[in-house]
Amino acid sequence: MMKKGCPFGTHRVIEPKGVLPQPAVKIDNSMEIYDNEILIDVHTLNIDSASFTQIKQEANGNEEKIKEIMLAIVESRGKHQNPVTGSGGMLIGTVEKIGTALEGKSNLKVGDKIATLVSLSLTPLQIHEIISIRKEIDQVDIKGKAILFESGIYSIIPNDLPQNLVLSVLDVAGAPAQTAKLVQPGHKVVVIGGGGKSGMLCLYEAKKRAGKDGQVICLAPSEGSKERVMSLNIADNFIVADATNAVEVMDKVKEVTGGEMADVVINCVNVANTEMASILAAKSDGLIYFFSMATSFTKAALGAEGVGRDNTMIIGNGYTKGHAELTLEIMRENPELRRVYQELYA
Amino acid sequence: MMKKGCPFGTHRVIEPKGVLPQPAVKIDNSMEIYDNEILIDVHTLNIDSASFTQIKQEANGNEEKIKEIMLAIVESRGKHQNPVTGSGGMLIGTVEKIGTALEGKSNLKVGDKIATLVSLSLTPLQIHEIISIRKEIDQVDIKGKAILFESGIYSIIPNDLPQNLVLSVLDVAGAPAQTAKLVQPGHKVVVIGGGGKSGMLCLYEAKKRAGKDGQVICLAPSEGSKERVMSLNIADNFIVADATNAVEVMDKVKEVTGGEMADVVINCVNVANTEMASILAAKSDGLIYFFSMATSFTKAALGAEGVGRDNTMIIGNGYTKGHAELTLEIMRENPELRRVYQELYA
Ligand SMILES: NC(=O)c1ccc[n+]([C@@H]2O[C@H](COP(=O)([O-])OP(=O)(O)OC[C@H]3O[C@@H](n4cnc5c(N)ncnc54)[C@H](OP(=O)(O)O)[C@@H]3O)[C@@H](O)[C@H]2O)c1
Ligand SMILES: NC(=O)c1ccc[n+]([C@@H]2O[C@H](COP(=O)([O-])OP(=O)(O)OC[C@H]3O[C@@H](n4cnc5c(N)ncnc54)[C@H](OP(=O)(O)O)[C@@H]3O)[C@@H](O)[C@H]2O)c1
Repeated sequence: MMKKGCPFGTHRVIEPKGVLPQPAVKIDNSMEIYDNEILIDVHTLNIDSASFTQIKQEANGNEEKIKEIMLAIVESRGKHQNPVTGSGGMLIGTVEKIGTALEGKSNLKVGDKIATLVSLSLTPLQIHEIISIRKEIDQVDIKGKAILFESGIYSIIPNDLPQNLVLSVLDVAGAPAQTAKLVQPGHKVVVIGGGGKSGMLCLYEAKKRAGKDGQVICLAPSEGSKERVMSLNIADNFIVADATNAVEVMDKVKEVTGGEMADVVINCVNVANTEMASILAAKSDGLIYFFSMATSFTKAALGAEGVGRDNTMIIGNGYTKGHAELTLEIMRENPELRRVYQELYA
Repeated sequence: MMKKGCPFGTHRVIEPKGVLPQPAVKIDNSMEIYDNEILIDVHTLNIDSASFTQIKQEANGNEEKIKEIMLAIVESRGKHQNPVTGSGGMLIGTVEKIGTALEGKSNLKVGDKIATLVSLSLTPLQIHEIISIRKEIDQVDIKGKAILFESGIYSIIPNDLPQNLVLSVLDVAGAPAQTAKLVQPGHKVVVIGGGGKSGMLCLYEAKKRAGKDGQVICLAPSEGSKERVMSLNIADNFIVADATNAVEVMDKVKEVTGGEMADVVINCVNVANTEMASILAAKSDGLIYFFSMATSFTKAALGAEGVGRDNTMIIGNGYTKGHAELTLEIMRENPELRRVYQELYA
């Protein structure tokens, strides 16, 4: 008989008691499953970009030190939640066991290869060995096990796309799916940090939704990203700028939009202090979608008030219905974009 | 001829160059106005509570020392931004001069008494004399001048309401004004922290908007708030609970909504770790408005994803168009609520 579990995994929380697994400081990562859990044999961790950047910095890029930091995080917390950034990532693995209470509730079977779409910041995890680190794409191959709770979302890895590509784009699937919901025909859209993994998917989706009367602008600091984005034809304009400089961003967005500014700003950066640039890039009643986990709630709230802006500012929920399907479909629709993602992130 | 200014006041920034006045270390507080500025003859500073507490402590409660510290802050920074807490406050004064570029842009006139609704942490200020200090309510009467930038928001002090009541409710005016925009007829609404200053205004506005087919639920931990809120008739139900306990909150909201959960959740607490309760109180596609400054961006974003919830989560911008008028109108509409606010907050 398996023990009965809570759908959200509260039965695994060790400290502090009564909270959910995500805010918990420590969770139980023993691998005997409850009746509503799924046991996964883990192949690969895809560490959240903000988290992995922090870890690499702390380790001065040294691989052994990166391993040590990762193992220490899981050792102390029972999950791979970076104590500095608070964020996690996701994983790929094979279903090893399914709790009895889940039988008949989905068509998932033992042996299926899945990507979990809930954060590693709440997923019970054991790392037995770190096999290899692919620093440029934030992926780490391991031997280990993990637990998926009943409320946890996942995606079965499709056969027509390479696994690493799938993992890599599913990590940021919320961003293009939200873009699809927010961008209307004719909109002017600025994607701050549009040269990165989530950013290019947002640009692609924004161009599709804004249509020929719309205008899609990518903003990022590097010339390399400019070349790539413009040759992919996923933005109408590219602004080379540092988004921690709010006034410069405002001036440049003003210039390329003919003074109108953006209806929708999507923030996909992996650095702090870009709230103000996001606010000043938008129309005074424009919508700002913060996907970046480096966003500060108070900087956004007080920043908008300080300049008298009536912006709607949305916290980037990583999940929205159909986000995995929409994002994988982008990879099928656009072979050039897919080639770039394959090269850069898979 | 007046000099031309930037709407956000960047022309006043001395150090470091290129940033906005709020993050600046030093701004120019000379009182010759630019063409888009307003000169204010200041009567009273309302120092942010965190800032004034720090100043009183540093001064050991000594009034002359408090004056010295305040004068030194303005002397070195050109604004009353506490270097320890980073925070400001607001001010009350009389309009003395209006820049030529603002003519016809609003109905503000010289001689109007206004409260500035942007922080003192970005407002150019000169203090000529500190007249008196009201330590208990963080207010300081001065002789001095201040500058309001073009983007700076303000409210004309009405004659029919006591000045201290006006100041107190304007501080949280964004919350009821956003509630008015978000709540639709028939909605089920939960206000978490509904027993406090911003919360009761939200309850009142939510009941008005949700109408007789709606349901408005207040959640707060104290029995005292329950009595007050229920006797004011601004909520249909009151849940006595601690919002740091997400699972308990979910169960109780399920009970009072007959299993439906909330269309809109408004978070007005003054404590940390209530993101998850807000998410679990909502329908799986419900809307959550975080007014509380104790909200963590990552806890909200990862929390919703972690339980597979497709919620829209909004960052509580302190400003929205018409927020001051709407909030002062509540005080006029409901004499009982006004009496309670007068007693508790003025
Ligand atoms: N909300 C969620 O559920 C969720 C889920 C996953 C990830 N995330 C977050 O999403 C963010 C982006 O992830 P990603 O994988 O897309 O990152 P990424 O591939 O590293 O892309 C980052 C982008 O930001 C740009 N950038 C860096 N510094 C900048 C600056 N100062 N000004 C303007 N742009 C700057 C980069 O510019 P270049 O192109 O010039 O290098 C790049 O285009 C991260 O913060 C991550 O934590 C959120
Ligand atoms: N976004 C903005 O621009 C802006 C502007 C101003 C203020 N704020 C923020 O708004 C928040 C509320 O301000 P306020 O002046 O309304 O505060 P307040 O008057 O102190 O009210 C706080 C409310 O939270 C309740 N509460 C405390 N602990 C709780 C818990 N564990 N579970 C559930 N409820 C709990 C209190 O319960 P009882 O009634 O039982 O005491 C009270 O009802 C603060 O965080 C403030 O920083 C934001």
